[in-house]
Amino acid sequence: MSLRSALLALLSSGPMTGYDVVKQFSTSVGHVWHAPDSQIYPELRRMHSEGLLSSRPVPWGSRGATKTEYSITRDGEQALRHWQDEPEGYVRERDAAHLRAAYFEWAAPGAAATQLRAHIEHFRDQRAQALEQIAAIENRTSPTLARRLAANPEDQWERISRFKVFAYEGQVGRADQEIAWAERGLRLLEELGELDGPGERE
Amino acid sequence: MSLRSALLALLSSGPMTGYDVVKQFSTSVGHVWHAPDSQIYPELRRMHSEGLLSSRPVPWGSRGATKTEYSITRDGEQALRHWQDEPEGYVRERDAAHLRAAYFEWAAPGAAATQLRAHIEHFRDQRAQALEQIAAIENRTSPTLARRLAANPEDQWERISRFKVFAYEGQVGRADQEIAWAERGLRLLEELGELDGPGERE
Repeated sequence: MSLRSALLALLSSGPMTGYDVVKQFSTSVGHVWHAPDSQIYPELRRMHSEGLLSSRPVPWGSRGATKTEYSITRDGEQALRHWQDEPEGYVRERDAAHLRAAYFEWAAPGAAATQLRAHIEHFRDQRAQALEQIAAIENRTSPTLARRLAANPEDQWERISRFKVFAYEGQVGRADQEIAWAERGLRLLEELGELDGPGERE
Repeated sequence: MSLRSALLALLSSGPMTGYDVVKQFSTSVGHVWHAPDSQIYPELRRMHSEGLLSSRPVPWGSRGATKTEYSITRDGEQALRHWQDEPEGYVRERDAAHLRAAYFEWAAPGAAATQLRAHIEHFRDQRAQALEQIAAIENRTSPTLARRLAANPEDQWERISRFKVFAYEGQVGRADQEIAWAERGLRLLEELGELDGPGERE
């Protein structure tokens, strides 16, 4: 289960409170595997009850309150290794943008072009975010990566960093391809004389 | 909801029994939006009860038995147009292969390369399937497309066909990008001296 693997991977960088997991998730591994906070807290508790995480109370604030800090256990590390070594169960294709494009003949005048322009905008954002992540890894400004490197011998730093850059390069490539595809679609609409809707002809 | 839109799109090519919907789904629109048969039958019944489809009994076999044949209604066509014109609700990124690659340092020797090779193989298959679909559209050997064209005036044939080719070109482009990414990963593993696992060194 991918959320569990993502959480084990995050906690393999060092112990964290649930709050810190949520915060660091959204700025690191959450870029490749999105999960809402409402899924993360219960999953941490399940992983704890199954022995993949240990917990201890840590002081919180000045009034003697505590928070739960989670650490990955040996069983948790074993689960992380097991996930890496099992074959990927590829899901069958479900691409909402391709589905829609296949039936553009049902779109109102101009609507297909609007969809393709929104597609380009969406993937330009995705591309920019992935490039930011790559820069944060290469410049060593990512706090999650800094903790992870500190927890590992120096001769491992290059491979650890480069695997992460490689994952984000996959996102950049994906975005580039989606942008190129949508631009091709705009050229097709232009060729068919269907680029502009009534709203754009004024 | 995408399954519903896919079914409306399929039935806009002409009336079909539930059995024919399932059969034609898997060889046409199911390539861009996969759905198991077990989801298709109940969704057809729901669409019928909501007035998006009409139904009539048609003879089946020689013993006076009948089957239900579904046709898209005007409300169904309206729903298809509405779907085309509403903005896409992009889902947040969830890419299992990118997630795994980001943490290849946890993989057993050789396992990362095995994953990337399987990734290449998976997307080579996807690419070949999409190219087959494109050929079936361009050569007019797709039976679903033949029905659709027959139900439309000839001056619509080009745009109807080219939108479908465009959708499958998106799948070819996607597959090309995934293959290129995984090949890049294999070069990275080679550079790090981690290409071959123990099983391959023999």
